[in-house]
Amino acid sequence: PLILVINCGSSSLKFSLMDPKTGEESLNGIAQCLLSDNANISFKVNGEKQVLALLPPFDHNTAIVELVNFITKNNLFEQITAIGHRVVHGGEKYHQPTLITPQVKNEIAKLAKLAPLHNPANLVGIEATEKVFSHLLQVAIFDTAFHQTMPEKAYIYGLPYNLYQEHGIRRYGFHGTSHYFVTQRASSLLQKPLEQCNFISAHLGNGCSISAIVNGKSVDTSLGFTPLEGVVMGTRSGDIDPSIIFYLVEQLGYSLDQVNTLLNKESGLLGISGISNDCRTIEEQLLAGNKRAKLAIDVFCYRIAKKIASFSASLDNLDGLIFTGGIGENSNTIRSLILNQLSLLGFKANEQLNEEIRFGKQGNINDTTSRPCWVIPTNEEWVIAEQTQHLLINKGM
Amino acid sequence: PLILVINCGSSSLKFSLMDPKTGEESLNGIAQCLLSDNANISFKVNGEKQVLALLPPFDHNTAIVELVNFITKNNLFEQITAIGHRVVHGGEKYHQPTLITPQVKNEIAKLAKLAPLHNPANLVGIEATEKVFSHLLQVAIFDTAFHQTMPEKAYIYGLPYNLYQEHGIRRYGFHGTSHYFVTQRASSLLQKPLEQCNFISAHLGNGCSISAIVNGKSVDTSLGFTPLEGVVMGTRSGDIDPSIIFYLVEQLGYSLDQVNTLLNKESGLLGISGISNDCRTIEEQLLAGNKRAKLAIDVFCYRIAKKIASFSASLDNLDGLIFTGGIGENSNTIRSLILNQLSLLGFKANEQLNEEIRFGKQGNINDTTSRPCWVIPTNEEWVIAEQTQHLLINKGM
Ligand SMILES: Nc1ncnc2c1ncn2[C@@H]1O[C@H](COP(=O)(O)OP(=O)(O)O)[C@@H](O)[C@H]1O
Ligand SMILES: Nc1ncnc2c1ncn2[C@@H]1O[C@H](COP(=O)(O)OP(=O)(O)O)[C@@H](O)[C@H]1O
Repeated sequence: PLILVINCGSSSLKFSLMDPKTGEESLNGIAQCLLSDNANISFKVNGEKQVLALLPPFDHNTAIVELVNFITKNNLFEQITAIGHRVVHGGEKYHQPTLITPQVKNEIAKLAKLAPLHNPANLVGIEATEKVFSHLLQVAIFDTAFHQTMPEKAYIYGLPYNLYQEHGIRRYGFHGTSHYFVTQRASSLLQKPLEQCNFISAHLGNGCSISAIVNGKSVDTSLGFTPLEGVVMGTRSGDIDPSIIFYLVEQLGYSLDQVNTLLNKESGLLGISGISNDCRTIEEQLLAGNKRAKLAIDVFCYRIAKKIASFSASLDNLDGLIFTGGIGENSNTIRSLILNQLSLLGFKANEQLNEEIRFGKQGNINDTTSRPCWVIPTNEEWVIAEQTQHLLINKGM
Repeated sequence: PLILVINCGSSSLKFSLMDPKTGEESLNGIAQCLLSDNANISFKVNGEKQVLALLPPFDHNTAIVELVNFITKNNLFEQITAIGHRVVHGGEKYHQPTLITPQVKNEIAKLAKLAPLHNPANLVGIEATEKVFSHLLQVAIFDTAFHQTMPEKAYIYGLPYNLYQEHGIRRYGFHGTSHYFVTQRASSLLQKPLEQCNFISAHLGNGCSISAIVNGKSVDTSLGFTPLEGVVMGTRSGDIDPSIIFYLVEQLGYSLDQVNTLLNKESGLLGISGISNDCRTIEEQLLAGNKRAKLAIDVFCYRIAKKIASFSASLDNLDGLIFTGGIGENSNTIRSLILNQLSLLGFKANEQLNEEIRFGKQGNINDTTSRPCWVIPTNEEWVIAEQTQHLLINKGM
């Protein structure tokens, strides 16, 4: 049995056909530039890649139809037992994988208020797959679900309480599926039951989030009401003095929309360095002696180290630190700069291991005198496939 | 010789006449409700308090004239050797006590852009005292000065770099005089030269800030571009997801001005509890079983603990933690809740000492197994008097 995993954005649709037991992919790929005449879909099977232009109307439905053709041609259609969808925002309602019903779709639509860029796109993906896979059950896996175990002290802001009660303004957190995956992995590396494990996990990609996990459950996380809060990211500012927004508008004449764009798209590594949002490019420039590249990396790593350290207030003991995501899995430079600032918490990198464990490898990168620190490549698709499969079994289907 | 210390706000003027060597006050007091017909001035000499109504035009000049009368009546006028003014914002220009000249006044006025509520009021105080003490030198002691030693990685935000270069948008930090005073004290308690001391200091009053001090110098602090950032305060939110501002305006119809007021005046302990911004009142309600009071205190203490813990990324070793300010000096409840969340950093309260060291007492409150933690009553006036005196001596005056 295979699970089709769908991660649908406003102009893209990622997919993976996966064995939920082993995580083995029969095929994966992405449809990109949807809703434009450059729309295309690429498939990867057995390491071979194939790209097809999409035909009008260039939309998500077109992409799904092309995907079904491809799946059928490869004799995989019959093996699909269910569809698992990544859905970004589940609000306070969804803390579990959830069978998609018309009512659930309504709720996802309502939650679009909290995730206007993501939930509507996720719904488009759900409806496109429903059309061609009407015989299969569809399951929603929410990015926020893993963090629904946070205690009040972690999710309530220092704001008038009615903003939480009446308008749902609180910390939700994101990247839940990734944090869940790597903490599970770390618990098996440690050979300790997940319910007894305390970790801090750092998902460092284009978006970055740090989470504190106590007894296998998320108790705090750096992303907040939206994915703008927390550490410095590729193009997002992370935490700033909120007054800066007033200053930009009142003193410097920005519109609030411009500030929104500034903080989400022009800040972070890109804004500080003035070079790129891509960590690789900035590391190259760092080596070439560029000062602003160095500053961007210094601020990035210092703020991540501070956020990791801050979560020591959430735990009485700490089994280890986990790095994942594009940067966390691949950049020994960043990992080393972070760990070097965590000596008071008992961390120290083993520079040789740190250089070795990259590009998909998994393992320890800490010195023998240090608390454990692992690099664990994340695999959100696998979690989605697994949880979708679990739900079917639990429901006796 | 006595120094007259002036701390001037928009409708108040605090003063203290002090021996800079001993910190002994010959008199202190405050003029309040200035610019309204309730304007009054109160004096305290030898523990006795006296209040006078002020006459029209009820302004800062009126208050200063009344102060001079009082000083003269008490035969203290001749003993005053200089005036020390608290000035809130010194920007990047002032990292030292500074003799006030017309040019310095210009700069303080220019910096009003960064501190529109404070610097203009500080200037009013300077000009009012200049009139009646024209024979004396006036010195400015800046709230931001102590933090000018922060490294770039601590003061640069994850924003486009030109906002720093062209508009001075960076972390400045405040409460510098207080952090400086308590770190000096802690170094003598420790009998270790200040230049070798690493501390984290928590100034918890109506405004709250946490600072990291390495080798006696500030390397990071929680207040930022303005005093809104950082931990939850009496009425200020501290850190929030910046997107919440967009949400309040775009989805909930707030004006940006209303959001500004909300975050600065209606948030923090007041906002969460719905009861008060005053920590004492909230603690009373906590004891009475009020859930929102408990939540406010939980969020307050957790966020302070996280901020303290975060600064462990700024230090390789830590000589101790310092509590000061109205809450830090007096609330054993708050201190205990914070310390209990810092066990990973090696802190543990001694509850008996913690209950004892309050109401102006100074001393250790940590368990023998813990890193040192001190309560140190702050005395910003003394720093201002001392630094004013130093400057005079250094200039050979
Ligand atoms: N070898 C590498 N060294 C440093 N950074 C890398 C390396 N490989 C990938 N990255 C960085 O990972 C980031 C993308 O992470 P990823 O997890 O793929 O992003 P997303 O959050 O979009 O899923 C980019 O900043 C990229 O530069
Ligand atoms: N005994 C006490 N217990 C708890 N909080 C106290 C106590 N005494 C004073 N405080 C609190 O100290 C705060 C005022 O601190 P203070 O340093 O005087 O303020 P400011 O920042 O205005 O100088 C108030 O929240 C007050 O409730």
